[in-house]
Amino acid sequence: MVSAKKPVTLGLIGFGNVGRGVYEIIHTNRDTIEQRLGRPVVIKTICVRHVAKYQVENIRVTDVIDDILTDPDIDIVVEVMGGHEPACDYIKRALEHKKYVVTANKDLIAKHKKTFFELAEKNGVDIFFEASVGGGIPIIKSFKVGYSANQIESVYGILNGTTNFILTQLYEEKKEFSDALKAAQDKGFAEADPTSDISGLDSAYKIVILTAVALKRNIQIEDVYYEGIADIQYTDIAHLDTFGYRVRLIAKAKRVASDSVFVAVYPTAIPAAHPLAMVRNEFNAIYSTGNMVGESMIYGKGAGSLPTGSAILSDILDIAFDSSTHRSRRNLESHLNDARVLPMSDNRSQFYMRLSVQDAPGVLQGICTKCNDALVSIKRINQYETRSDCMDVVIITDTICESVFTDLKATLLAEPSVYGVESVIRVGL
Amino acid sequence: MVSAKKPVTLGLIGFGNVGRGVYEIIHTNRDTIEQRLGRPVVIKTICVRHVAKYQVENIRVTDVIDDILTDPDIDIVVEVMGGHEPACDYIKRALEHKKYVVTANKDLIAKHKKTFFELAEKNGVDIFFEASVGGGIPIIKSFKVGYSANQIESVYGILNGTTNFILTQLYEEKKEFSDALKAAQDKGFAEADPTSDISGLDSAYKIVILTAVALKRNIQIEDVYYEGIADIQYTDIAHLDTFGYRVRLIAKAKRVASDSVFVAVYPTAIPAAHPLAMVRNEFNAIYSTGNMVGESMIYGKGAGSLPTGSAILSDILDIAFDSSTHRSRRNLESHLNDARVLPMSDNRSQFYMRLSVQDAPGVLQGICTKCNDALVSIKRINQYETRSDCMDVVIITDTICESVFTDLKATLLAEPSVYGVESVIRVGL
Repeated sequence: MVSAKKPVTLGLIGFGNVGRGVYEIIHTNRDTIEQRLGRPVVIKTICVRHVAKYQVENIRVTDVIDDILTDPDIDIVVEVMGGHEPACDYIKRALEHKKYVVTANKDLIAKHKKTFFELAEKNGVDIFFEASVGGGIPIIKSFKVGYSANQIESVYGILNGTTNFILTQLYEEKKEFSDALKAAQDKGFAEADPTSDISGLDSAYKIVILTAVALKRNIQIEDVYYEGIADIQYTDIAHLDTFGYRVRLIAKAKRVASDSVFVAVYPTAIPAAHPLAMVRNEFNAIYSTGNMVGESMIYGKGAGSLPTGSAILSDILDIAFDSSTHRSRRNLESHLNDARVLPMSDNRSQFYMRLSVQDAPGVLQGICTKCNDALVSIKRINQYETRSDCMDVVIITDTICESVFTDLKATLLAEPSVYGVESVIRVGL
Repeated sequence: MVSAKKPVTLGLIGFGNVGRGVYEIIHTNRDTIEQRLGRPVVIKTICVRHVAKYQVENIRVTDVIDDILTDPDIDIVVEVMGGHEPACDYIKRALEHKKYVVTANKDLIAKHKKTFFELAEKNGVDIFFEASVGGGIPIIKSFKVGYSANQIESVYGILNGTTNFILTQLYEEKKEFSDALKAAQDKGFAEADPTSDISGLDSAYKIVILTAVALKRNIQIEDVYYEGIADIQYTDIAHLDTFGYRVRLIAKAKRVASDSVFVAVYPTAIPAAHPLAMVRNEFNAIYSTGNMVGESMIYGKGAGSLPTGSAILSDILDIAFDSSTHRSRRNLESHLNDARVLPMSDNRSQFYMRLSVQDAPGVLQGICTKCNDALVSIKRINQYETRSDCMDVVIITDTICESVFTDLKATLLAEPSVYGVESVIRVGL
């Protein structure tokens, strides 16, 4: 693909799980991204420890970090190697070389955010870290822009997919902790050494970042009380269920006064009707309260190479939107394609219907026969007596075309034993 | 407040519910906004039909639209008058005068988005409309930036708070439609004439906008099938409940092929475990699937002057971030304030605890006495026999300080009849 405009040119430090996610997204969604941005995004160089292990078409693979840091062609350095050193040193040097930096490294952002921000400002660039909390969830951008006119009062996050998966297994499968952990490991949701997840430390790092982003306060990981889920037993989850509660590992940050906050991570029983209670399996969610917008929640996949890569690319595009021209492309494309809207008759869904029918032998069988003749299979059926000579029949069909349902309804209404179709509601998204 | 930098200067067209929300936020959160942006946001002029009705300190109130459109001081025109004309004409003229425009007007954006975008581009400015869908929820920004590297496959929205409130009342209060509508009107969630909400038309306008923003396709309101909730009866909601479904008014937009989409609004029965099923009362939520990020949901208040004002201000700040300097302030402030983190011992919450105790007369009474002595009131208590001489006592306390609970736990453990405190889980956010 040739573009008249200079591509946004990346250097990747590291090419593990997340780095490969970034690569895959750039390749799979090339057209979407280029349309959105007005120019392509290109990975020019990847720096790894063992060059021989990697071969990537059209990309230079090096073990010399300066091949990225001193390349004037490279606009944005994407740090996806993880760990503390040398990643921290590389980020600092990238900023000093006036490169924008995008990173998924939660430990480094939590620990060195102030140093990084100051270094970025001094060098007229910036550091973005959407992927460091909540995987693909645009939580950092929501606090930075979406809720920017609010004073955020509190943030409650389910920030670790491994522990939430385990808690879901405890509750739904009635498993004990060790079996649930094994299930998480089998599904690839938990590391071989899951200590950082299970202990709450991973969530603690992330809530330190959200305290900076949402509450605008700089705190240290050492100040955060954290407690994990290793002691949670099925029996307590069951007891709490009878009282109407679900247990989640909640990372909490709350403004207390202008100079003090409360920040902690611990298993928390929350009312079953609370939005955070519906967050199941490996999903993450952040529930916050702003003094103007009120309660909000953002929910999505907190880990995985593609969701994390999606967040990294959103940062890359965000930087590119800003740094290109005065007129932002962050808004919609001005040239929207028209599209044909399919007619409702082509829509496919399951259907719930409530029929009012004669209470007589053979009536239910007649309805089933009509459905069968129309090639509509019945997934659920209940019948209720309503008056002496009348009953309600409630049916949920299999997935069918709207036009098939319309015909079936007409056929049923033509039956003398069917007094009426009282309700129709489509089932399923 | 004096600032060395030129304030971001606004002209408001209209000063009803939403306009007053914008005014209130600018005044209440003045410091937060100025810190975020690096300069103040100021309303210079408000244009209304009847000048005599309004008097606002330090703001010029006019009925001459050109006082806003031709004022070189005004950077951003905020259209919050609503309706079709003259709002549409004013927006076009503002863009022609090279003003950025921010609007909450869903009808106009749905109908004239293409014209507006082209006019904006021609004049080197932009039009933002976060408040037009989902009130305070930053859904437009999430699609524009947060999920920008994704091809969005589908969007399912609860986009109308009035109808969702009514459906919640039907289900939870077992009300019939007319009573639930009255409750919504009493609470101020429904207009005196609720036709546009109830019929699904309001949601249809909004899904046309999300089709543009998420699926990048231009469709017309006339092409959208919509069906409201006036025919939904409690009996059907109850039947569907027994099958494990909840009924919501869902606005749906789905990519079918590169040139065609399916877009419709109708009451839909969704599985009770689906994230959209937990959206209760007047809340809105948008559930979407991107080809990289997977499933996401954003949830919050879909209406009200402050949530809507919050969205309008996020647009204003977003424009100001972009249009000021090369270096974006859209990222974090580089000067984060340090904060004191309160010790865990100061934390207040309810506590669940499971005690293993001797199965003997007076033991339960003894526990209650100890709680009473510690001034801890018991909200819930259950007891279960576990072995012949042993029972589990499960307690949920009232909200107390962590240190009070620690002392109580020690006191209970000192009792000979208490074999152990088997579990402790904090209850409530």
